[in-house]
Amino acid sequence: MIARVIVTPKPVVNDPQGITVKQGLASLGFREVSDVRVGKYIEVHLDSSNEHEARQRVEAMCRQLLANHVIEDFRFEIVKESRK
Amino acid sequence: MIARVIVTPKPVVNDPQGITVKQGLASLGFREVSDVRVGKYIEVHLDSSNEHEARQRVEAMCRQLLANHVIEDFRFEIVKESRK
Repeated sequence: MIARVIVTPKPVVNDPQGITVKQGLASLGFREVSDVRVGKYIEVHLDSSNEHEARQRVEAMCRQLLANHVIEDFRFEIVKESRK
Repeated sequence: MIARVIVTPKPVVNDPQGITVKQGLASLGFREVSDVRVGKYIEVHLDSSNEHEARQRVEAMCRQLLANHVIEDFRFEIVKESRK
């Protein structure tokens, strides 16, 4: 199975990377961009056949390593390996 | 509208960040993890009412700035602002 994890800075946290990307887009002429937030995308391949168990394990991975819960939010989805 | 852009290293490209995360997870006891790839998640807020046009603009942003097409793939979805 594959877990697709998205980690984003919490809305109240400054995101200098996002501000820089926004300025870069504006200088390229994309003036319709009102805000940019930059986060991480983490694809975790798991040797697991039980989706419920995989979900719990990935939740634990996020809490222990993948996301810093003080400044970041995370969400994820579990998909079957088929598209690999 | 919001564009949710995911930029990932191409499958043939080395991903040292992914290897490091995989090792970190293994040392925490998550031994079922067979592979990890780390990419970027970029949320672009757009002042646009035409979804078709927004799609073309975001595609152009990805090609010009958000992704390095030599070593990265990108994909995105456009969603309405409602959940903000």
